[in-house]
Amino acid sequence: MPESHAKSLYPATSAGHPSKIAIIGAGAVGTAVAYACAMRGDARSIVLQDINKAKVEAEALDIAHGIQFTPTGSVEGSDDVEIVSGADLVIVTAGAKQKPGQSRLELAESTVALMRNIVPSLQRVAPDARFMFITNPVDVVTYVALKLTGLPRNQVFGSGTVLDTSRLRYLVSLQTGVATQNIHAYVAGEHGDSEVALWSSAEIGNVPVRHWGPTLSGRLFDAELRSEIAQEVIQSAYKIIEGKGATNYAIGLAASNIAGAVLRDESRVLTISTLLEDWEGISDVCMAAPTIVGRPGAGRVLNPPLTLAERDGLTASAQRLRQVARDLGF
Amino acid sequence: MPESHAKSLYPATSAGHPSKIAIIGAGAVGTAVAYACAMRGDARSIVLQDINKAKVEAEALDIAHGIQFTPTGSVEGSDDVEIVSGADLVIVTAGAKQKPGQSRLELAESTVALMRNIVPSLQRVAPDARFMFITNPVDVVTYVALKLTGLPRNQVFGSGTVLDTSRLRYLVSLQTGVATQNIHAYVAGEHGDSEVALWSSAEIGNVPVRHWGPTLSGRLFDAELRSEIAQEVIQSAYKIIEGKGATNYAIGLAASNIAGAVLRDESRVLTISTLLEDWEGISDVCMAAPTIVGRPGAGRVLNPPLTLAERDGLTASAQRLRQVARDLGF
Amino acid sequence: MPESHAKSLYPATSAGHPSKIAIIGAGAVGTAVAYACAMRGDARSIVLQDINKAKVEAEALDIAHGIQFTPTGSVEGSDDVEIVSGADLVIVTAGAKQKPGQSRLELAESTVALMRNIVPSLQRVAPDARFMFITNPVDVVTYVALKLTGLPRNQVFGSGTVLDTSRLRYLVSLQTGVATQNIHAYVAGEHGDSEVALWSSAEIGNVPVRHWGPTLSGRLFDAELRSEIAQEVIQSAYKIIEGKGATNYAIGLAASNIAGAVLRDESRVLTISTLLEDWEGISDVCMAAPTIVGRPGAGRVLNPPLTLAERDGLTASAQRLRQVARDLGF
Amino acid sequence: MPESHAKSLYPATSAGHPSKIAIIGAGAVGTAVAYACAMRGDARSIVLQDINKAKVEAEALDIAHGIQFTPTGSVEGSDDVEIVSGADLVIVTAGAKQKPGQSRLELAESTVALMRNIVPSLQRVAPDARFMFITNPVDVVTYVALKLTGLPRNQVFGSGTVLDTSRLRYLVSLQTGVATQNIHAYVAGEHGDSEVALWSSAEIGNVPVRHWGPTLSGRLFDAELRSEIAQEVIQSAYKIIEGKGATNYAIGLAASNIAGAVLRDESRVLTISTLLEDWEGISDVCMAAPTIVGRPGAGRVLNPPLTLAERDGLTASAQRLRQVARDLGF
Repeated sequence: MPESHAKSLYPATSAGHPSKIAIIGAGAVGTAVAYACAMRGDARSIVLQDINKAKVEAEALDIAHGIQFTPTGSVEGSDDVEIVSGADLVIVTAGAKQKPGQSRLELAESTVALMRNIVPSLQRVAPDARFMFITNPVDVVTYVALKLTGLPRNQVFGSGTVLDTSRLRYLVSLQTGVATQNIHAYVAGEHGDSEVALWSSAEIGNVPVRHWGPTLSGRLFDAELRSEIAQEVIQSAYKIIEGKGATNYAIGLAASNIAGAVLRDESRVLTISTLLEDWEGISDVCMAAPTIVGRPGAGRVLNPPLTLAERDGLTASAQRLRQVARDLGF
Repeated sequence: MPESHAKSLYPATSAGHPSKIAIIGAGAVGTAVAYACAMRGDARSIVLQDINKAKVEAEALDIAHGIQFTPTGSVEGSDDVEIVSGADLVIVTAGAKQKPGQSRLELAESTVALMRNIVPSLQRVAPDARFMFITNPVDVVTYVALKLTGLPRNQVFGSGTVLDTSRLRYLVSLQTGVATQNIHAYVAGEHGDSEVALWSSAEIGNVPVRHWGPTLSGRLFDAELRSEIAQEVIQSAYKIIEGKGATNYAIGLAASNIAGAVLRDESRVLTISTLLEDWEGISDVCMAAPTIVGRPGAGRVLNPPLTLAERDGLTASAQRLRQVARDLGF
Repeated sequence: MPESHAKSLYPATSAGHPSKIAIIGAGAVGTAVAYACAMRGDARSIVLQDINKAKVEAEALDIAHGIQFTPTGSVEGSDDVEIVSGADLVIVTAGAKQKPGQSRLELAESTVALMRNIVPSLQRVAPDARFMFITNPVDVVTYVALKLTGLPRNQVFGSGTVLDTSRLRYLVSLQTGVATQNIHAYVAGEHGDSEVALWSSAEIGNVPVRHWGPTLSGRLFDAELRSEIAQEVIQSAYKIIEGKGATNYAIGLAASNIAGAVLRDESRVLTISTLLEDWEGISDVCMAAPTIVGRPGAGRVLNPPLTLAERDGLTASAQRLRQVARDLGF
Repeated sequence: MPESHAKSLYPATSAGHPSKIAIIGAGAVGTAVAYACAMRGDARSIVLQDINKAKVEAEALDIAHGIQFTPTGSVEGSDDVEIVSGADLVIVTAGAKQKPGQSRLELAESTVALMRNIVPSLQRVAPDARFMFITNPVDVVTYVALKLTGLPRNQVFGSGTVLDTSRLRYLVSLQTGVATQNIHAYVAGEHGDSEVALWSSAEIGNVPVRHWGPTLSGRLFDAELRSEIAQEVIQSAYKIIEGKGATNYAIGLAASNIAGAVLRDESRVLTISTLLEDWEGISDVCMAAPTIVGRPGAGRVLNPPLTLAERDGLTASAQRLRQVARDLGF
């Protein structure tokens, strides 16, 4: 049987090609991203690529069987990187598996080695695509990919703290009873333990968090509660991994949201991981900051007002990330 | 921290309660159903219930962290069945795990034993809900649940062959290049090996499949191709399980689609598994047939024209299902 | 032919009723609201009521003919107020027509006379509904309706400055190239000339407008540009009326957005017109302020930080509105 | 102030351009199409063009003020045809106004004269666009536009009977209580009095209409009821025009649905008006037939089974349309 919707019904035309997202890695994260993108219709065509042929074909087929219920036209899987050809956006979720006794740095080294392998071939088949990295340590992987490809800053970025930002908003929503969509709070810095919740510019509607007054539980957004929430944002990933072995559903939604901002050229403010160049005194590192995201990829980085503590936290986060990159030879 | 959006902001009112879906079982299927329902906004509140407390809380939290990107208001998980209280629709995905050496019938016995345990408690906490079963063997489980609850036919139904129907349409779409949404073909009978693709009433747009002419691969929809496609529908589940260990994404979308038909009172024609009473000579069995699905649940069953072979296939499918129910003591 | 989807297919059940929006007035605004609500699926059933029987039936039928392309189930029109029965939300767009030589106050008097006529009958047929007023002068009409019905504050509110807020965000978006969805700025006070753009708490992403730096046209968000934009928000309604004779499409979208917040219980922050009780020193007047909107209707009013000028502007706006109400005998 | 979202934030890239729909004519139909397309997000950018500068700017601004509530990025209006440049799809709604005492043919002559004027300039500024005509008499206008442009058949088509088909499904839905989305019935031929409801291939779910049995009103789908419904489809436009002076909302939804099929490359079966070449013995005329619609525009025309009466009706409809074209000099 034919493997895809043939277009031979029509004469060749100059019509623009339908949009295409390619997802690298068909694990729990990659398939959740594909599922979310398919349901939201972020692109007309979604392809999954993974070295495990049986797995990637099964995952793609399992989603394809449901496309009747989505706005998406086709979902296909392959172990051949050529399937990525023509993608508008390439989302990389593939990573090295942690081996017993392996340190975090050793794991990062394995992941970087993997990137040295796959990134050039992705660039070869889709030279004009935007590249979004989700693979952890995402900030370092994004920096490495920028160096490996030599592409301009806008074209290569990471999912950064879009998920952490979403978690922060969820927790503030629980405290206040206000819809997450009206919680305008951001997490910046490393996607990891050194990340910084930017409380000083956080608003609920147009009320600064520090002016909100009592929460539903009768507390105030004082230093203690803010710290508890920020810790909860960092810890919740560990809690979820403990309970289900991985996190995949929320990152699937977060990645789909970034993908939509790119494919639909939305000019959204998102805390993606992007190369910073003299941003709040920070340079030569990829980490999350509020950034305008549209069809070109990563655009202008915003400069929210920062407290000294926030600025120090971001500087420390940048140093930590730069050190890891140096340790890995970048 | 508070566990959900408190409503104490408002005076008590007579306003209708927001809609609620409860999903029983937080495995690969249950969580895919929850994820799909959350993304499509099928209900304002989605709850997951599972006996594994750490797992169900982690799964719910992983989806809840992304609700900013969905129309859904809250996603919560608990091992306590009380969380199901007030649900408009209860979707049961929990099943017995197959043990090594266990036959299919023994597995069905374990599953029925599980249903004897959980169905009454679900009925107790949500007596007015609609109940949709996905747990396999879905037709037998649905029949058993009807008997256990004593509820009217419309209130208890199974996901039936909604997924098989979607797979059939997908394959016909690949053959013809026409959108799955314009392929009007149905699979009826058992969700399993004895199911029957109703080719004689299948249309592409308003062209009967048998009149379509050459497919994109130059074949005709003759007996051979129809049989190949029907076999592929049945076999694809096995292929996916071989490749990824389970099927979950497409059934998540299919279940979400049924849930939406109920919650939004859509009066859609869906091949859910429903109690048949003198349908094409078939009675006293739950199996899939094209059925109108709306807020009341399972409505009128349609009577498409059938060939003798289709009717014989459906009768055989019904006998097979009735026999399994008898073997299980129902 | 039957006039609506009969439900006699099903046994009577205890299932919740599908959601229903009733729109009073089938003019340019009322039909745009109905069209927007139908396309977004804000309720399962949408009804239009107007004294002009031929017109309201034609308008409803014109939308109903397209429901295949929407998530909505039915759209019906009638000159009989009984069609409003069972509505979850009643949206009032009907108003008096301005006669030649009639002053604004005389027009308001005619509109209030109309409200004395229709509001009690709406309350009679839908006593538990939320009531949203769009009819101008919306703040006064809302106040009058609250008094006429004696209903609690949450149940009766107006569309306020949700549209003005949307216009403000649109203009800031044009200046900055950032998506309107990331412009967190609000207009409060009268829906009219005395309204106040709350610049001091306005943010683009998490950057206060005053810290933004150069706009795309090289200007700064200084007092001059802020004043120009605020004036443009007020003037744009006049410009549109001059060009097309009415404004209806944007208010249709704004009203649909409020309706969705109510029907889906979203707890959104929206600048609806609501009875203020000691809000920033303002009491006993309905006017727009950032308010949590959910199923109960108008919830808690937020207290954003205000400059002295903003506070003075809001106080003046309130006095002006209170005076109009007094002049009309309320 | 800048008139649109500047893209100078980003370095120039090879990224695909965002999608764009241009609508010609800012009357009741053109603006309803723009509104529907904006709400559904059929394209990133929507432009309206009309010779009435004040009107078209006002209409565009009225929609633009609400884009915060839509997935669309920008809506702009101009009297300058250059605004159409770069459009993927051009939708023509502009027509001649009927003058008192003017016959139908004279009106058609005026409309054709208008097309001779605007179609070449549209082709000049958007040579690669697809062109969809809504202006009546739509079948003749489409034929004329094909001849004037010399473009291939796929690139120029009309809205045909997509709306009539939707009306037919709506009426069958009312009779049966089944969702319009499951009524698979089509109207073909002229968009007008000689159109033909293709009852013989019409299905409800997978039940042929003639096998449905009693309707909700206790009637059967016999010749009498089928004729009543078909007449109602034709007459309803007149009824709506009598009641509200025009039809615009349903055609807005129908056009948006066709636009989405093109822009998202959906390969949908739609009864657009397309050049027929030996279709059921009919050639050299544009009229509605079930056609596959995707990014290339009008694709393959389907051949549903027809009764002799249906075939005769279609042949007569074609002759009538061909005669009008001949009378107009084409």
